[in-house]
Amino acid sequence: MKIQKIKGSRLDNQTKVSDLVEDMKGYGFQASELHKAVEIIKKMRREKATIILSFTSNMVSSGLREIFADLCRRNFVDVIITTAGSIEEDIIKTKKPFLLGDFNLNDKELNKRGINRIGNLLVPNTRYGFLEDFLLKFFEKAYTTQNKNKKLLSPSDITYCLGKSLKDNNSFLYWASKNKIPVFCPAITDGAFGLQVYFFKENHKDFGIDISGDMKQLANIILSSNKVGAIILGGGMPKHYAIGVNILRDGLDYAVYISTGSEYDGSLSGARPKEAISWNKINKMANYVFVEGEATIIFPLVVCSIT
Amino acid sequence: MKIQKIKGSRLDNQTKVSDLVEDMKGYGFQASELHKAVEIIKKMRREKATIILSFTSNMVSSGLREIFADLCRRNFVDVIITTAGSIEEDIIKTKKPFLLGDFNLNDKELNKRGINRIGNLLVPNTRYGFLEDFLLKFFEKAYTTQNKNKKLLSPSDITYCLGKSLKDNNSFLYWASKNKIPVFCPAITDGAFGLQVYFFKENHKDFGIDISGDMKQLANIILSSNKVGAIILGGGMPKHYAIGVNILRDGLDYAVYISTGSEYDGSLSGARPKEAISWNKINKMANYVFVEGEATIIFPLVVCSIT
Amino acid sequence: MKIQKIKGSRLDNQTKVSDLVEDMKGYGFQASELHKAVEIIKKMRREKATIILSFTSNMVSSGLREIFADLCRRNFVDVIITTAGSIEEDIIKTKKPFLLGDFNLNDKELNKRGINRIGNLLVPNTRYGFLEDFLLKFFEKAYTTQNKNKKLLSPSDITYCLGKSLKDNNSFLYWASKNKIPVFCPAITDGAFGLQVYFFKENHKDFGIDISGDMKQLANIILSSNKVGAIILGGGMPKHYAIGVNILRDGLDYAVYISTGSEYDGSLSGARPKEAISWNKINKMANYVFVEGEATIIFPLVVCSIT
Amino acid sequence: MKIQKIKGSRLDNQTKVSDLVEDMKGYGFQASELHKAVEIIKKMRREKATIILSFTSNMVSSGLREIFADLCRRNFVDVIITTAGSIEEDIIKTKKPFLLGDFNLNDKELNKRGINRIGNLLVPNTRYGFLEDFLLKFFEKAYTTQNKNKKLLSPSDITYCLGKSLKDNNSFLYWASKNKIPVFCPAITDGAFGLQVYFFKENHKDFGIDISGDMKQLANIILSSNKVGAIILGGGMPKHYAIGVNILRDGLDYAVYISTGSEYDGSLSGARPKEAISWNKINKMANYVFVEGEATIIFPLVVCSIT
Repeated sequence: MKIQKIKGSRLDNQTKVSDLVEDMKGYGFQASELHKAVEIIKKMRREKATIILSFTSNMVSSGLREIFADLCRRNFVDVIITTAGSIEEDIIKTKKPFLLGDFNLNDKELNKRGINRIGNLLVPNTRYGFLEDFLLKFFEKAYTTQNKNKKLLSPSDITYCLGKSLKDNNSFLYWASKNKIPVFCPAITDGAFGLQVYFFKENHKDFGIDISGDMKQLANIILSSNKVGAIILGGGMPKHYAIGVNILRDGLDYAVYISTGSEYDGSLSGARPKEAISWNKINKMANYVFVEGEATIIFPLVVCSIT
Repeated sequence: MKIQKIKGSRLDNQTKVSDLVEDMKGYGFQASELHKAVEIIKKMRREKATIILSFTSNMVSSGLREIFADLCRRNFVDVIITTAGSIEEDIIKTKKPFLLGDFNLNDKELNKRGINRIGNLLVPNTRYGFLEDFLLKFFEKAYTTQNKNKKLLSPSDITYCLGKSLKDNNSFLYWASKNKIPVFCPAITDGAFGLQVYFFKENHKDFGIDISGDMKQLANIILSSNKVGAIILGGGMPKHYAIGVNILRDGLDYAVYISTGSEYDGSLSGARPKEAISWNKINKMANYVFVEGEATIIFPLVVCSIT
Repeated sequence: MKIQKIKGSRLDNQTKVSDLVEDMKGYGFQASELHKAVEIIKKMRREKATIILSFTSNMVSSGLREIFADLCRRNFVDVIITTAGSIEEDIIKTKKPFLLGDFNLNDKELNKRGINRIGNLLVPNTRYGFLEDFLLKFFEKAYTTQNKNKKLLSPSDITYCLGKSLKDNNSFLYWASKNKIPVFCPAITDGAFGLQVYFFKENHKDFGIDISGDMKQLANIILSSNKVGAIILGGGMPKHYAIGVNILRDGLDYAVYISTGSEYDGSLSGARPKEAISWNKINKMANYVFVEGEATIIFPLVVCSIT
Repeated sequence: MKIQKIKGSRLDNQTKVSDLVEDMKGYGFQASELHKAVEIIKKMRREKATIILSFTSNMVSSGLREIFADLCRRNFVDVIITTAGSIEEDIIKTKKPFLLGDFNLNDKELNKRGINRIGNLLVPNTRYGFLEDFLLKFFEKAYTTQNKNKKLLSPSDITYCLGKSLKDNNSFLYWASKNKIPVFCPAITDGAFGLQVYFFKENHKDFGIDISGDMKQLANIILSSNKVGAIILGGGMPKHYAIGVNILRDGLDYAVYISTGSEYDGSLSGARPKEAISWNKINKMANYVFVEGEATIIFPLVVCSIT
């Protein structure tokens, strides 16, 4: 292996992101890991691997939502795995933006003013009013479909239908549906979506969502792929779901984790790729990397460098 | 308010945990926060609040599993919210223990030897062999029940039936079922459980799990409670589910978070209790605290001090 | 090696800390690491190792100050390495306590009221008024000594003299001086101490502190010890100084790190013990452990278990 | 104040860093904080503030060393505060590079091969052999100067002389000396430098370093500045020294912290800028920001955007 010297570069306001990330190979620490992430994703693409993208809902709260949409538009990813909040917020943002606030705002004051906080982001209650109206109408349609099919919809059926009903170039659900990229969301009843299901069921007791309906579709994709890679932003259930299914095929061939999670608590969220090798969730011959950092900064650097 | 001076105490090998935690009030930093957590939980109990306990699956991987079981045995908690891994591992441990390893073991070597790693814990593959056999038999029974009811089971139906089928004083599912403490697990198909569902469905195509079936039961508990408190260990979906449903009642009255999560990434896992106030998930008059620390150390200190 | 099963224990308000920590061996994650820390420190003592204790100044801000004092009183440690803030705050606390506050107080408001904040601790300005008076008097004496010796004092000369001038059973400087435990503090001019030196020098231009004067004393201790162990709380310069000098003797024989530092940034503060092995700062046959956690909780558990 | 919507942008391999960072204003979480950091530094420059740059030695281990050198070359900063390791490593790198390794290498193996590890960087022992020779020659010269002046040198005297003796466009000490940017390093005897001082003193007992000699020079700069800003990378003593001296002038006017440190342990390293307001170390009218992230990624983004 070629020895890589550690050395910074002269930078100015004309420097391109892709050039900077190339230089970061020789910066050390997380800069070098970031460079490695880019190399692995480029390899995924060269090898025509099936690419799974998983992310937590705070990523969709942030400006990464539009970046995910653009990756779906360009058919860059093949499978998405996420949480209920991502679905909700993608819908809300088709009509009403989130706003920049501050981590240190007075939450009692915000509550009085009807504003919800996510880190340094603000979401006025009106956003959820809109979502509730949207979902109630959607559930009526879903209920009709359920009754016609004589079969409960699965979470990925729901995300597909939701995406088809949206008209927004900046929506990842819209592009995922359009480009037949399945969006898996096992815990879809967690959050506002779940509360609306609860209200809807008060008058439609037989309405339901069959969470078991999704595994076969995901398994088929994994089993029929020559190579599989995963880009995993953050932790939680989406991460576990993304790596876990790859036990079926002797593990992922490529894995890029970008996370703030810590290893010392034994959490899956903070677990490093090498732990997944013991489980056969990542193949022992795989290319993998863990970039420790916050995705709103790290992932845009990656996206500039792989496209 | 009385002014609290900062001052340590003389300690020796006869010091009781409950006395140390009492002294920690005056130690500052997280020691003082830990003391506050104990005070809030004592108040939950005095006020006869409904107590929700949420945790991630790594807690059940660890020795906290038996401590959770003991809390269920003593009817200390009223609702449990967790992830699929907790269910799986509680079942495995009724027959076969996990073992202590090291964070820095060679994962390729472990893989070759058929040993899975969770932080510094080891889980030989035989554990999952046992689980698969157990679950296949269980699914046969669940399928019969489903057909008899003409209705899919919900995740909490499943955890209840699982608990009834276990015979182990150290199992939290066993005690939860025995003492009618519901165990909610929205993403129950995430993990080995989900893979077994997938295999079972190959020959039982109409077998399913209705994730929408649980919200009403949880909502009823919340809505019929005079006061509600939550003890939230770790982050992820269980945390969100635990606080989210309390929007229905103008927020939790008491909230104790024990977590290693960080706030700066805008994740729900790392969000502090005050953020939940903006959302009405914690009431603005609530008593709350965030103890930043790893649960295998922090939670036993709490348990010694509240009982 | 005996296989350690993972299993929790029944806990109540009579449980002793030392018994809980013994049980933690089988809890996994950081609980098991904490147990290991205790075992290593017990071994240091059995083997009559020279014990270095290093800590950052926030530890002295907290209630750990009195615990350090008690360890010095009992001759439990042989060398202390710390920062200027520890010296300052130990002096202040001989007369005036720090107070418990909250991490989220309004700092502009505190500033207006003349109160300084350290995390959730409060230090009214009067504390520093007292310190300034104390130091000015001390510098007069030190200046006389310097002129008599015709030689600048070193930081450890100063901490020794300071300790001798204090009369407080809860002061670690007091006990360190009394029991001839040297207190090294290379960056002694960082902080309020440094500002007072600056003011004093305005009228005593030849007053000085020779930072080079300490290394020989520390080196002699290290070189004349049969075994050396270090208990390192937090990171920063004290950690580096504590491990660095052990290059002279082929590395520490025992090392216990208790820290919240992270490894991914390549900082010395977050570096794990194994990194120090590459440097010969920890011997490759050494017993070592890293407990990731906040010292106000972790260290009291250790102290209860080793005494 | 204008309301800022949260929205991502389309990115590709032609995107400039400065444009991306401009867009990050609307990404939320740390991306927005990073944008704010850039705005504050631009304002420092517009207002012709005296700019203090502080960093820990791992930054010099990384590729940031050459970036610091370039900032000194361009007279972008007015004062540098750092630790002994930075001085040592800048000298070593004038002749011999550090190399890229991996966080998970076997440290016993590295030790056997004479290679030291810093995170994912490697430093063969030969580097320190070179440093020792360099320093011994330097101390001879310094000793002569000391005897001529009849006065011990201070740490900043030493860093100035060191810089003058180097001939390397990529050295920050070289450019700092050339451009009369003082480099303060209170704990200069921490590390290999200190060990060499110890060896040198064995035969030159009156050689010394007066740590008290620096404060006046720094105080004069601070007191004579119209505005003062600080860019603080990482924590530790350099951070404390940088903010602490500004008590003399009612606090910093601008403060940008870039750090991985955590607040919950009450450490100075993890303390947020608002804590420093309570101490008058940052002025209550100041512009400030905390960017939580690893400097090898964050700081190059900043540098591209401010120049």
